[in-house]
Order: sequence, then C-alpha cells, then structure tokens
Amino acid sequence: MAITNPQTPKGTRDFLPKEVIRRNYIFNTIRDVFEQFGFFPIETPSFENLETLTGKYGEEGDRLLFKVLNSGDFLAKADREALQNLNSNALTPSIAKKGLRYDLTVPFARFVVQHQNELVFPFKRYQIQQVWRADRPQKGRYQEFYQCDVDVIGSDSLMYEAELIQIYDSVFAKLGIEVKIVLNNRKILVGIAEACHIGDKFVQMTIAIDKLDKMSEAAVIVEMTEKGIPEEDAKRVLELLRTESIEVLAEAIKDSETGLKGIEEIKKVYDYLESSELKNALVFDPALARGLNYYTGCIFEVKATQAGLGSLGGGGRYDDLTAVFGKPDTSGVGISFGAERMYDLMLEKSLFPEELITGIQVLFIAFDEQTHLYAFKQAGKLRERSVKTDIYPEFGKMKKQMKFANAIQVPYLAIIGEEEMQTNTISVKNMVSGEQSRMSIEEFISLLVS
Amino acid sequence: MAITNPQTPKGTRDFLPKEVIRRNYIFNTIRDVFEQFGFFPIETPSFENLETLTGKYGEEGDRLLFKVLNSGDFLAKADREALQNLNSNALTPSIAKKGLRYDLTVPFARFVVQHQNELVFPFKRYQIQQVWRADRPQKGRYQEFYQCDVDVIGSDSLMYEAELIQIYDSVFAKLGIEVKIVLNNRKILVGIAEACHIGDKFVQMTIAIDKLDKMSEAAVIVEMTEKGIPEEDAKRVLELLRTESIEVLAEAIKDSETGLKGIEEIKKVYDYLESSELKNALVFDPALARGLNYYTGCIFEVKATQAGLGSLGGGGRYDDLTAVFGKPDTSGVGISFGAERMYDLMLEKSLFPEELITGIQVLFIAFDEQTHLYAFKQAGKLRERSVKTDIYPEFGKMKKQMKFANAIQVPYLAIIGEEEMQTNTISVKNMVSGEQSRMSIEEFISLLVS
Repeated sequence: MAITNPQTPKGTRDFLPKEVIRRNYIFNTIRDVFEQFGFFPIETPSFENLETLTGKYGEEGDRLLFKVLNSGDFLAKADREALQNLNSNALTPSIAKKGLRYDLTVPFARFVVQHQNELVFPFKRYQIQQVWRADRPQKGRYQEFYQCDVDVIGSDSLMYEAELIQIYDSVFAKLGIEVKIVLNNRKILVGIAEACHIGDKFVQMTIAIDKLDKMSEAAVIVEMTEKGIPEEDAKRVLELLRTESIEVLAEAIKDSETGLKGIEEIKKVYDYLESSELKNALVFDPALARGLNYYTGCIFEVKATQAGLGSLGGGGRYDDLTAVFGKPDTSGVGISFGAERMYDLMLEKSLFPEELITGIQVLFIAFDEQTHLYAFKQAGKLRERSVKTDIYPEFGKMKKQMKFANAIQVPYLAIIGEEEMQTNTISVKNMVSGEQSRMSIEEFISLLVS
Repeated sequence: MAITNPQTPKGTRDFLPKEVIRRNYIFNTIRDVFEQFGFFPIETPSFENLETLTGKYGEEGDRLLFKVLNSGDFLAKADREALQNLNSNALTPSIAKKGLRYDLTVPFARFVVQHQNELVFPFKRYQIQQVWRADRPQKGRYQEFYQCDVDVIGSDSLMYEAELIQIYDSVFAKLGIEVKIVLNNRKILVGIAEACHIGDKFVQMTIAIDKLDKMSEAAVIVEMTEKGIPEEDAKRVLELLRTESIEVLAEAIKDSETGLKGIEEIKKVYDYLESSELKNALVFDPALARGLNYYTGCIFEVKATQAGLGSLGGGGRYDDLTAVFGKPDTSGVGISFGAERMYDLMLEKSLFPEELITGIQVLFIAFDEQTHLYAFKQAGKLRERSVKTDIYPEFGKMKKQMKFANAIQVPYLAIIGEEEMQTNTISVKNMVSGEQSRMSIEEFISLLVS
C-alpha cells in the first residue's frame, strides 16, 4: 500500500501556513463587517441529499455535482436495468443518495425551510464555506473553493439593499481594494423593454445586453435583431442603457409602471445612503443585467477599478428563494464575495499587511541544556502575553539555529547564554536592523506589547 | 422536482447562528493558544485520492471512508467482472478515485511528503477542519465533524511534549473546563512488561490494561491470563501500574533499558515544566495505554475532572508518520482536541460567556419613513465603531418591533422618534434593566465602547 509520491487530487490545493493566514485575513475582514451589520453565521453540512440539489443548477450544474457513493453493498440496491445497459446517468440515483454542496444558496433555502419555526424573521445570515464542482481542473479554476454569502430573508425593505452596498464598500476599503459598486434594478430593464415596445422580448434583450462587457454594441444589436427585435428598437434599447441620469431615464420609461417602480426602488436605496460617505464609487448602470433569471429587484456587481480584473462579487433581490422547497413568497436580498479572486488580486498587488508575512515574533536560542530550560521558561512568559514565540529545539549549533531563524524570517531573536541566565536577562537581536542589546524579560515584553 | 420537506442527510447537522458562534469561540480559543506557541495553520482538500487513504485506518476504516463517484460516464471504465458479479467492494476502485478525508493525520503525512522541500523543519502546524465517516448515525455520533490537531514534525526534542502539555493546560483553563492531563510513555510500558518477564506479550498486555477504565482489575487479569500471561506476572503488572512515584517505578524496572529510557523522557518533560504554573493537574499514570500501535514515546490523555465525562483529547510521540508515503524516520509529536465533546460539556455546564448569547448589541426602531432614514444614519455611526447594530426594517408598528427585539434578546434598543431626530438624540432603552434615557450618539458610543 505504500505510495511514494502522494499528491492532492487534481483540481484541489493544499494551503501552507502563509496562504491560510492570508486567506483568513480576507475571511475575517468580511466576517467582522457582516457582524457589524447584524448578520450572523450559519453552517450547513458538506453534503446534501441529492434530491435537494438536483435540478437546481440546470443540466450543466447537475453534471458538475460531486456524488457520494452509498456505503456498504451499494450494488444490492442498484438499478438493474441501468447496470445492464451500462447507463451511468440512470444508475446514479440508485447508488448515490448524497452530493457535495455545489453552492451556498440552495443549502440556505433548504435551511430556511427546515428551520423556519426556529428562526426570527427578518433573518440575517452569512455563510463562509467550501463548495465543490466537478469542473475540469485548469489554471485558476478549482474543484473545491470557498464561497462567502450574506443574505437577509423575510423582508422586502430596501434598507437592506443600502446595507449590502455599505458592506461591499466597507470590506473593500478595509482590504485596500479599490472598486466600483454597480447598481441596477431588473424592473428598470423591464421598463426599458416596454418603452421600446419589446416587453415580450425581455429575456432575449437581457441575454444580449449582458454581453456588452465582451462584445461591441454593434454585435449586441445584431444578436437582438437575430432574436426578433427590430433594429430600430434594439438601437433605442442601447441608447437608453447609456443613460446615466436616473431622472432622464425615468422620463424615458414613464409609460412603464414596472419601470417606474424600479426607478423608485433605486431612489429609495440612494435615500438610505444619502448621508453615508462611501469610500468607493457607487454607480447606477441600467446596462447591468446579471442573474436575471433569479433576481427580481435590485442587482449589484462589484468590479475592481483597474480594468481587466473582472467581477469581485455580485448579488441582488429575489422573491422566491424557498419556493422550490414549498415555502413561496419569501423575499430576500443577498450578495456574495469572490474571495478566491480577491486573494489573487491582493497577492498580485501586494495588498496584504506586512505583519501577516511573519508567523512568530520571537525565536529563543540557547547554548546548552541549562540555558535551553531557562529559555523555555522565558518563552512561557511571552506566550502568556500572547506574543507568538518559539524556541529552537536543539541547543549549541549556532549556525543551524541562525539558518532556521533566517528561514522563518523571525523579527526578534532572543539569545540565552550562561551570562544571560546568571543576570536574568535576554540578549535581543532585531533581525531587521541587526542591532543587539541586553534587557530584562519585562523590558522585552514592553518592547513587544505596546 | 419540488420537495416540500427538505432535510439534512442523516448523521449531519445544520448549525444555527448561536451554535456557530459558540463553536467558533472554542475553535478561536484553541487557535490563539496554538499560535502563541508558534504553530500555524494548514488546510488540505476535503477529498484525497483513495490510494492515499485506503489501508491507513484498518479494515473498519476502509469501510467507513466516504467515496466520491467519478464524474461523467463512470461505468465506461468500470470493472466488468465486478459489475457482472454485483461485487460492490471489487467495483469501487474503478468507479471512485477519491474519498472524503477520514482524519487529519493521513492528509498531514501526505502534505509533509508532498511539500517537504517548501517546509522548514521542525515544522509546527495545526489543522482545524472537518472529517467524514460513514458511521451509522446515532445520538452524539455524526458523519461529519471537526477535528483539531496540532503537531510538530522533524524533531525528537522533548521540549515539544512540554509545550503540548502547556497548550492543553492553557486551552482548558481559558475555556473554564477543569481537566486532568495524564502522561505516560510507551517505553515505560515496555519496561513494565520486561520487568515482569513478559516482553514478548507486550501487545496483549497493553490491550488488556487499556480496558482498565471499563473493566475491573480482576477481569483485566483474567484477560491477560487468557492471552498466555501467567497470573503471577499479570498481578505484578497491575501492581506496577499503580505506582505513582516515578522514582519507585524506575527502581522496579531498572533492568529494562527501554523502560529506563522512558523514565528519563518523562523526567525531561517535567524538567521543562518545572517553573511553569499549570492551572490543571498533570498526572503521571503508567496505566495510560492509548494508541500504542502508533505512538512510540510519550502519550497524553486529557480527562474532564468530573467523572464520567470521558476523554477530551489525546496524543503522543510517533516515529514514522510519513514512512507509509516513502519518507521514513520523521519523528513528531502531536495532540488533538475533542472539540465536539468539549462543546457538549460547555453547553451542559453553562461555560460559554454570557456575551456570546447575544448576537447584536443595539437595535434601532423608528416611527415613520423620515425617522427610519435618520435611524439608518445613526446606526452607521455605531457600525463604524464595530458595534454590532441592526435596524428593524419596518417603521411604526411598535408591537411588532418590540416582539422582534425580545425575540433576538437585544441588550439595547435605540428609539428614534420625531423629537429625537429634531434634537439629534437617541432614546436608549436598556432591555435588561428596563431603564430608558435620552442621549447623543457620542454619549451612546462611549456607553457601548469602553
């Protein structure tokens, strides 16, 4: 059974201490902001019954679900016909009852329905957990990754849209990532369609305009005309999408009741934000058209200010999260953070604080058994004061000890020799400046804990 | 596809906010202590290649591994003979390449071998992640649960045994759980066997004495004799196991070289701990015999002081963690925390701090649209100061607002009416004392942030 070159499965990663520390810095920043806004964590199991997951993510999604093989003699209850025909798809339900979580949304919907009598509504939850997708492994795409979702369910107050915008603003400001928060409303897109007399082509229109990021306007117009939208109307749509002023747009779509409702909702969100000093740009953009088979009101997207870095998160208002589990009419609104992409960006732009790079603050080294025991005792005093402290396990061998100290990039070396032990002092070497001086443990503590 | 009563799979749990907050309190306490001692986090993927996991946990363990069904047309590459014979066991390797993590030890061994050139040794890591076991679900036993492991690998210094004892002591003291830390050494058990002339029956002897917790001494003696140990020797073994003094035991096993080595190791651990004021009892107990097919030196176990609560953690020194992956002779030592059991115990004994019970600190309520917008603005100022704050989304409806405030057990209610808005003040109601007074936002902040 001994294998000599064990590896992580394709599409998965190990995280070394530096990586975990940096990733946790992002998660903790997000978590703190969520909690300031009164959102609290839930956790759901890594696997769900497949009947909970199947059919929720489209055909593609069903294919990408990781299925967990039933335990024991699973073939005993396997679908014989599917076995005979070697039909994998048909066989699966009879040999795999559970699947790994594909996102955090469906488990959250299941959670709300299952626990509805234990929850107080409006219910504000966040969830930072892993999800799994059987995507073909490739650079920057993994089979296991974290999602960071925050939602409030059980209220249609537009105050929450304002809160979520503040959350985006606060998190990205704290992390030092400059972003643009883009805001739109599905109802405004309906209004635009109606104002252009193509209300019956709403879906075709939004599918086309969702491509404006990647395609030219001319190409988007061609796509619309191919889907049966007259060229004149398609051009008028694009004209309206370029409207920056809410007032001007309101006038243009004034005959659409739904459209005006959308305008009103956007204005209400701005009312809540009136006095709040956002640190990032909030931009109303009627051309934002993401997630429209799901979202029913406001929609959000966050983009890094520097071009070409893509989306760092998104979300919106939905009306029917739990309908699929038999609980209709629960309005909610939520956003998510693209934590994996944020990590890559922060690494690339060196946005992580310097102090995260160093694990321990002090390394003790000693010359013999007695000084080593003494060093251990002194280290205990620093640890009690929450100073991250280590002691090199072997004594003597200065070269080896210094090599270790350099390898772990420790900022302070605490050297304990016979003389230090006799005088109850420590020789402290600042590994950055190279300076060395003798001091008492109390002096050292006040140097470190200030 | 709509199912109306969706449930978590058997053997798994959802965690509601209060539970997550309490569980994180335990994990964060453990994490902080680990980091004070210079241990840092790693994370490994949730699934490993099955060849990494299989054969590492015995037959029982192999059966309890959750296997992940290969994606796509998995039957195309399925073992035809196993299919024909409906042989589930024989079929599995050809349709499932990956398995969910069963513990954190084997993935850590794989990690050390895979990343040996990136790591600095001695390598001190901790890992707090979930593991999965296809155990039959029953009360208190779950298919998904957290493990909390801390290990140092690449050194045989007994200083680390002392550190791990300090870690146990510090964590349990911080959590308010009174424990007994029990210490022994496999070599001492070898010494006892040799002193009783049953060195060749070491395994049988330790299997029997490991049952002393559950069986009477007489029954343990019977078990030993049934395994071919003369009754006289079995009795002598039990006599030696009752020895509390290390010196007395050393004298009794002085003819066993291995035994004396064990004594010396225990003494060295005590040397390191000499000046350290442990808050819990550290007990040397030669009868502790856990994990002896794995541990080679010191062994640890933590038990709650109150009887009947069982083990809250354990660990020991091992010499060959990575040998199974082709890297022999890497000595290490580690312990783990039984976090799930600690959670149950803390809940039962009401050991969680009161302030964890309350999610948010302040709830704003308002009477109309204008005061609601004003309340939102004031809430923003508290949130900026990291006060966990919420605003009830609807205004007016005092009864509904108060019902919500009571349901979430918020400590402070901030009431904004016309008068408060005009005078730029807040009416603050202490929900515990019932007292209510008018103050400025700055006064309120200094009341909360002190």
